[in-house]
Amino acid sequence: MDTAEFRRRGKEMVDYVADYLENIEKRQVYPDVEPGYLRSLIPEEAPEQPETYEDVVKDIERVVMPGITHWHSPYFFAYFPTANSFPAILADMLSGAIGCVGFSWAASPACTELETVMLDWLGKMLNLPEEFLAGTKGKGGGVIQGTASEATLVALLAARCRMVKRILSDDPERPEADIISKLVAYSSDQAHSSVERAGLIGGVRMRKIPSDSKFSVRGEALRKVLEEDKAAGLIPFYFCATLGTTPSCAFDYITEIGPICNTEGIWMHIDAAYAGSAFICPEFRPLLDGVEFADSFNFNPHKWLLVNFDCSTMWVKNRTDIIAAFKMDPLYLKHDHQESGIHTLHTHTHTHTHSICHWQIPLGRRFRSLKIWFVFRMYGLRGLQDHIRKHVALAKEFEALVRVDERFQISAEVVLGLVCFRLKGSNDLNEALLKRINSARRIHLVPCQLSGRFVLRFAVCARTTESRHVQEAWAHITQLATELLRQVRDHP
Amino acid sequence: MDTAEFRRRGKEMVDYVADYLENIEKRQVYPDVEPGYLRSLIPEEAPEQPETYEDVVKDIERVVMPGITHWHSPYFFAYFPTANSFPAILADMLSGAIGCVGFSWAASPACTELETVMLDWLGKMLNLPEEFLAGTKGKGGGVIQGTASEATLVALLAARCRMVKRILSDDPERPEADIISKLVAYSSDQAHSSVERAGLIGGVRMRKIPSDSKFSVRGEALRKVLEEDKAAGLIPFYFCATLGTTPSCAFDYITEIGPICNTEGIWMHIDAAYAGSAFICPEFRPLLDGVEFADSFNFNPHKWLLVNFDCSTMWVKNRTDIIAAFKMDPLYLKHDHQESGIHTLHTHTHTHTHSICHWQIPLGRRFRSLKIWFVFRMYGLRGLQDHIRKHVALAKEFEALVRVDERFQISAEVVLGLVCFRLKGSNDLNEALLKRINSARRIHLVPCQLSGRFVLRFAVCARTTESRHVQEAWAHITQLATELLRQVRDHP
Ligand SMILES: Cc1ncc(COP(=O)(O)O)c(C=O)c1O
Ligand SMILES: Cc1ncc(COP(=O)(O)O)c(C=O)c1O
Repeated sequence: MDTAEFRRRGKEMVDYVADYLENIEKRQVYPDVEPGYLRSLIPEEAPEQPETYEDVVKDIERVVMPGITHWHSPYFFAYFPTANSFPAILADMLSGAIGCVGFSWAASPACTELETVMLDWLGKMLNLPEEFLAGTKGKGGGVIQGTASEATLVALLAARCRMVKRILSDDPERPEADIISKLVAYSSDQAHSSVERAGLIGGVRMRKIPSDSKFSVRGEALRKVLEEDKAAGLIPFYFCATLGTTPSCAFDYITEIGPICNTEGIWMHIDAAYAGSAFICPEFRPLLDGVEFADSFNFNPHKWLLVNFDCSTMWVKNRTDIIAAFKMDPLYLKHDHQESGIHTLHTHTHTHTHSICHWQIPLGRRFRSLKIWFVFRMYGLRGLQDHIRKHVALAKEFEALVRVDERFQISAEVVLGLVCFRLKGSNDLNEALLKRINSARRIHLVPCQLSGRFVLRFAVCARTTESRHVQEAWAHITQLATELLRQVRDHP
Repeated sequence: MDTAEFRRRGKEMVDYVADYLENIEKRQVYPDVEPGYLRSLIPEEAPEQPETYEDVVKDIERVVMPGITHWHSPYFFAYFPTANSFPAILADMLSGAIGCVGFSWAASPACTELETVMLDWLGKMLNLPEEFLAGTKGKGGGVIQGTASEATLVALLAARCRMVKRILSDDPERPEADIISKLVAYSSDQAHSSVERAGLIGGVRMRKIPSDSKFSVRGEALRKVLEEDKAAGLIPFYFCATLGTTPSCAFDYITEIGPICNTEGIWMHIDAAYAGSAFICPEFRPLLDGVEFADSFNFNPHKWLLVNFDCSTMWVKNRTDIIAAFKMDPLYLKHDHQESGIHTLHTHTHTHTHSICHWQIPLGRRFRSLKIWFVFRMYGLRGLQDHIRKHVALAKEFEALVRVDERFQISAEVVLGLVCFRLKGSNDLNEALLKRINSARRIHLVPCQLSGRFVLRFAVCARTTESRHVQEAWAHITQLATELLRQVRDHP
């Protein structure tokens, strides 16, 4: 494919993308295929000779689309949203063409620098404490991780490193393995599975703190567990607080937990993967109060801030904590910098110049900050706030519908764009309802478990979801519920 | 931006991308900017109100381009290549629009399934042993990681888990922390820094095996270290072999190392980040001989196989080893599957249906296999082989030029697309030459250190590099060398 053909095919693809997104609600939101459907649709081996672009494009509808769960359909209410916007798609095209690998400043200065500045922009939009911003001389700053899971892991590793060093400085003879074997990391029993996984990877104990009746961790609950663990000779070192839990969008009390962590020398990381985007609205910003006690904070603009996957933004108060945990072979870096004629860069005090590879698990990275830049400028803060507010209003609208139908109950407070609800009745009944909903394929939902109860989650996801989709979804759910309840009554 | 505007802007962006790539050689390959250049060029905060697309686009040339290192310029000979092709850019546009998050089969069946089949395609192109393929009932299979660093880490974690379990099954009373404190991971002293970092993250000892005079690890060198370590009570568990080292593209002797690892129960992972792409050519496939002894194998199509970043392909012989290392909260997964009505999927024997999130550090993932599919079909195996062969031929051409200039020497055998060379003379002299080369900004190179010597690396990188660029580069280098040598002679 030469440049001339790319011009033609690229424009066709733009139209295909526009058509897809414009007409997405006509597609069945959840696919019919059975596991293994795809293998038989395509050859067993790559072709020896090139195929034409027409051949390839035909297969998008034949092979791919039948197996797609349409996350951007306004009838998709499952999981949490994943972002999709035109400015982000355009920025990603540019990023693909530039195709730089930004593992160090010299590898593409704009890539490192735009990222640092964008994280400052976003930090200001969230009204983060100054300490988290890089500015021109701060100790803190932000970085784009691929996912919240990576941010949770990076923070845990930094915390592990900090605690090991602290103990070794008091007791240099103590074997590191002995220290690590005593470390304990904590999170809510409502925390995302990635927190447990971070503990597994980091080779440390994990303990879950029981949440209260509203699915939030309170300071008292943490304090109680800390006393037990310290009495048992363990070393608490990391607490991953959740703002906006995956099952029910509950919020840990970081104003209570934060001071405890600070007193105990425990690293407090905040995982606000979904909810974080809402904090750009002044009315939701109080949910982030207490962030001043945190060592690190992360959320996913790729969930709810219209920046396409992958873009998970993480800030730390003290960059050196992170860098220490990822220190690498100095030889490699020395060369890396020598080559650019900025040999002193490594110890440069300028915040822009830190090689970003010290902040993350992968070494290479795409030019992801372009997406943020395009989206923030094309929407403006006001446009982004409108997007959040619209989703929250739609969730409230759905909640109101549920509340007037006395066969149903709301299972958790509706704070943002997620409504947890269920039929009054058994778990089996609710599981049966969900099965009917998802089998009908008109809308798509996933469940969760809250206090042992099977609960349906209704998350407002697509950028284009409107009131009529929510109303239709509810009419559809109630119709299926009516059928189900009738059938249960007639054939108990 | 509505759909109509996206159609227009998208097409403009296609033209911008085409223009950029078509004229890239006219741009200065390495930027002039100083660290911190970007911050002052843009506002300190995100705009309150939306800006127009014109405003944003204007800033690409004003703000971004002055700070770009043009990795796809035919005058870029630094690091290793990073791939860029039109079919991959088109596939990425589609992937952005679909915007699914493929953490489980149900989250988008096509995303999981196409990936599994593409890894089989690619495995066959490499003539990997059958055991590494998923097929319809194999125990092995492939997955796309973001980067080679992640693959190295994932393999190390799986190896750690396997060894801990093995020892615990003999001696259930032994504390896990004691086992982990005795584990040792190995790699060549030429291995990439990401291997050391994987050890740091996994909390295990790392030991580097001395490479031979050709920068390769031989079986004997490994055996010697293993004897020492076992005598000291340590537990060898992981060897990361490199095929195509970063400094000089050297190859560890996996036919010697592999049997030792197998006998000792050590997990052998192969990192062929750059060189792996070449193994699709029969004449280079012997370099992969010995892969049959490996537990896992990884390389980066995003380096040299025309699939844009990020796409690092990893195969394992035994999927359950990987899954065990990443096992997560079963509740979450249960729901994940219940929702899709395929409750049994978790234990399903079909290979397609394994949730891919068990294979990687991040939970979410883009639809990356689309890029492989588009590229392999539009180039065909033949087209991809041509690309590799052209780069190798260009490297040989450069090598020949160096060899006839007796002021210079070749510092390592030229096997693929990398030439390591230097002026006969001191390290300072070579460092001065490199500084002149990079300051002149006509071409871009990075150095390495080989046996204590400062060496220049000439890597054929861009898809569009031709003989004339190589010839020009050499003429330019020799001219700078002549000037330098004259100056040194005149002002010693
Ligand atoms: C609270 C929370 N944390 C973490 C995650 C995982 O996010 P990622 O896919 O970015 O790792 C999620 C995903 O929904 C989440 O809700
Ligand atoms: C041998 C080797 N391994 C690993 C890497 C790192 O690759 P990635 O950026 O995909 O982690 C490189 C990069 O050049 C490499 O040469």
